[in-house]
Amino acid sequence: MLHSIHHVNFLVRNLDTAVARWRKILDLDCEIRESLPGRGVDTARFRVGVTWLVLVQPTNPDSVPGRHLEEHGEGVFLLSFGVDDLDAAAAAIDARGATCGAERSGLDSWRVVDVGAAIGGSTAIQLTRVKP
Amino acid sequence: MLHSIHHVNFLVRNLDTAVARWRKILDLDCEIRESLPGRGVDTARFRVGVTWLVLVQPTNPDSVPGRHLEEHGEGVFLLSFGVDDLDAAAAAIDARGATCGAERSGLDSWRVVDVGAAIGGSTAIQLTRVKP
Repeated sequence: MLHSIHHVNFLVRNLDTAVARWRKILDLDCEIRESLPGRGVDTARFRVGVTWLVLVQPTNPDSVPGRHLEEHGEGVFLLSFGVDDLDAAAAAIDARGATCGAERSGLDSWRVVDVGAAIGGSTAIQLTRVKP
Repeated sequence: MLHSIHHVNFLVRNLDTAVARWRKILDLDCEIRESLPGRGVDTARFRVGVTWLVLVQPTNPDSVPGRHLEEHGEGVFLLSFGVDDLDAAAAAIDARGATCGAERSGLDSWRVVDVGAAIGGSTAIQLTRVKP
């Protein structure tokens, strides 16, 4: 069902500072900047193999990412698995005892579904539909 | 320099409980169990595409993973990037302002180097040599 780590989101307090540091230390390039006002975040992402590494600065302290940053500090806060069929995967996971949220639109119009808190501890688990 | 997410480590309080839950909810199979007494952990890992998803239960509360679990609770605590040439990558990162630790042996004799705290916040960043 899961065929990749589609993206990993790191919360940061200051996006420009974090981007400069990650770029320099890990020799990353070609970042893509994108804001999601509805989610309350500014982001920059880098491609590492098949996975997007996403740096996320909350712009709204009362958003889900903003509250997570306040509670846990900087670090990974979300891991999203790539799936072919989002509806089927979410239905299968619901049937197995977790509770998936409604589909929403992520960065670059990724279709994503948040898996409930049954696994992952303080790290949110998510599914992303991988475009054919 | 970085060509994949080689592995992602999740801290869990009870490995058997976590394995059962992850297997059930995400339909994972073929886990590999391995203990690293020197690191103070019992582990179970699953393959997701090119990435290993590793569940880690500290067996020693005074180990690095044990202290991280105590401080931060369950969730991702380490992200390891796959590189071809571990020595060259660690030297390049050192030259760019982080401080890599000495090479050590991870699960399955993976050769790993921990990157210093310059990036990642509460999530440890690591390099793993990918076997040719």
